[in-house]
Amino acid sequence: MADGRTWLADLVSTVVPGDAASALAAEAELERKTKPRGSLGRLEALAVQIAAARRSLSLEALPGAVLVAAADHGYAAAGVSAYPQEVTRQMLRNIVAGGAAVSVLARASGARLELVDVGVIDGEANPRIRTHRLAPGTRDATAGPAMTPDEARAAVELGARITTELAADGIAVLALGEMGIGNTTAASAIAAALLGVAPERVCGRGTGIDDAGWERKVATVAGALKTNGIDASDPLHTLTAVGGLEIAFLVGAMLGGAAARLVLVLDGFIVGSAALVATRLAPPVRDYMVASHLSPEPGHGLLLSELGLTPLLDWQLRLGEGSGATLALPLLRSAGAILAEMATFAGAGVTDTGR
Amino acid sequence: MADGRTWLADLVSTVVPGDAASALAAEAELERKTKPRGSLGRLEALAVQIAAARRSLSLEALPGAVLVAAADHGYAAAGVSAYPQEVTRQMLRNIVAGGAAVSVLARASGARLELVDVGVIDGEANPRIRTHRLAPGTRDATAGPAMTPDEARAAVELGARITTELAADGIAVLALGEMGIGNTTAASAIAAALLGVAPERVCGRGTGIDDAGWERKVATVAGALKTNGIDASDPLHTLTAVGGLEIAFLVGAMLGGAAARLVLVLDGFIVGSAALVATRLAPPVRDYMVASHLSPEPGHGLLLSELGLTPLLDWQLRLGEGSGATLALPLLRSAGAILAEMATFAGAGVTDTGR
Repeated sequence: MADGRTWLADLVSTVVPGDAASALAAEAELERKTKPRGSLGRLEALAVQIAAARRSLSLEALPGAVLVAAADHGYAAAGVSAYPQEVTRQMLRNIVAGGAAVSVLARASGARLELVDVGVIDGEANPRIRTHRLAPGTRDATAGPAMTPDEARAAVELGARITTELAADGIAVLALGEMGIGNTTAASAIAAALLGVAPERVCGRGTGIDDAGWERKVATVAGALKTNGIDASDPLHTLTAVGGLEIAFLVGAMLGGAAARLVLVLDGFIVGSAALVATRLAPPVRDYMVASHLSPEPGHGLLLSELGLTPLLDWQLRLGEGSGATLALPLLRSAGAILAEMATFAGAGVTDTGR
Repeated sequence: MADGRTWLADLVSTVVPGDAASALAAEAELERKTKPRGSLGRLEALAVQIAAARRSLSLEALPGAVLVAAADHGYAAAGVSAYPQEVTRQMLRNIVAGGAAVSVLARASGARLELVDVGVIDGEANPRIRTHRLAPGTRDATAGPAMTPDEARAAVELGARITTELAADGIAVLALGEMGIGNTTAASAIAAALLGVAPERVCGRGTGIDDAGWERKVATVAGALKTNGIDASDPLHTLTAVGGLEIAFLVGAMLGGAAARLVLVLDGFIVGSAALVATRLAPPVRDYMVASHLSPEPGHGLLLSELGLTPLLDWQLRLGEGSGATLALPLLRSAGAILAEMATFAGAGVTDTGR
């Protein structure tokens, strides 16, 4: 890899495909369970994928965590959000205080919540926030790169390091989320660039902007892509030039998480944009990804198609924070339990007709 | 109601619509939560429905149970299933032993499992099975009514009584399931009759029958409908003549459950056929129903459309036992927690732009 990117090549080289032998063994074991073959549909497919990711059929316990990365965006100044920029830090406080949707859903799902400040403006010091403020938000990408190469590298490496720690702590399934006013604009720029489509096709209403706001958003994305001379064949440059600190963190979290055999549960459009970057850098990372839901953001369906991921839920969720991914965690735990705990025809003395 | 059916009129009269005031209060409360309006999509709609059913916004804890009704079917003799009839009792044992899909999913979902033998041939005595064997399975419906009016009444009343007990025990959300070799044929007969469609449109592959088996199934349904002179305007007669003991039990469980303000989580096609009967008898019972998933059985989508229910999951689940409904229980708990536990903009000090 060119221009001093051996760090990235090193990180990418740690990601290996899911384990085909574990997948085959899981499929064979599911054939022996007391149910008509294939009758648990997607739940069986999920169990097989988790077995391949974990290299194991012992999926009784799948300890879960939610990893939420937060940062601010130069894009916010362009009036692309229905909410002012200070909401990023206000929501950070709300998340750790337990009142945000993701906080509530993490409790309901029995998952540990980890919040990382990767670059929130005026973010507060709080022992329950992992503070690694790499920059005071990104720069205005319509005037130049949103991040420096060093900032992007630091964010990616931080994401990889923290997921590696979580895996060492026994986490098996990781819901990924984000917080950052303006970040659907960053995600739209990444998606437009890497999917090769016009900004109009991927820009949505985000937190709820009106028509004029949407037009500003489209123009902002177009401007950022033009200013930075985006080359879709270089996902790291795209990420650096038009992305965001929390998105770069998530790319690293996916690469590090896959290397550590974590199941990566994607939230909506913004996490999806990170997934696209990660997959372009290291295609096998895809084997570890589960799409929790389909967002109404128009770019999300395009991203999931490109990634070849079928969402678990189609619930019109568009909050972010990792809320959709966290909501889906019990479904993954159930898939693991089916593989690990169901009786076989022989073991339970149930007549097997082979159907 | 004609011919000595005052018992049914009495039961139906206990079902009242969901509480509109609670629904409005829940909607207003969700507007104050720290999220863009409506951004939790279906999760918000679920919370509103649960509030209306429970007549309460205090949905922090929603204790769940899974109620599985089992019975045998005269239809089995016609070769309409890929599995022999003894599998009903074998699976009953497997369910209580903890090895069936529903057993595993109930544990994973933190729900209590209640198993009722309403009429299993050679069903065993087991302290963990509620044994109320009202008949040794149903009769051959192609030769006459599957049940006597007294049997059907006993099954309906039993279902209502047991759900009333569960509600008194503190259960709030009830996943409904069934077990009975041959019961997709009974469900198909009910669905064809009450939807007014040809048997071909509602008969599916059940546990996995081949083409010849499917043709036998269609002919069996057609024969049962013809022999019994089904009148779609009389859902109780339809249930009695071509249904099953566990389906009649589920109809009663829905009526009694709605009267006791339980949220009723429907499993697949067979439970759906009971839901159609219950709704025809007492339309307000619909307000308490949540469709957990869409089954590949062709009649299921027709049933859900008629009921006006949108499934939570589209996962190609076709096992039955209440497995899909049980899988969905954590999603309902999450919906309740969102309403009960999320902070408001004012409470959390987050800027509210009204979007």
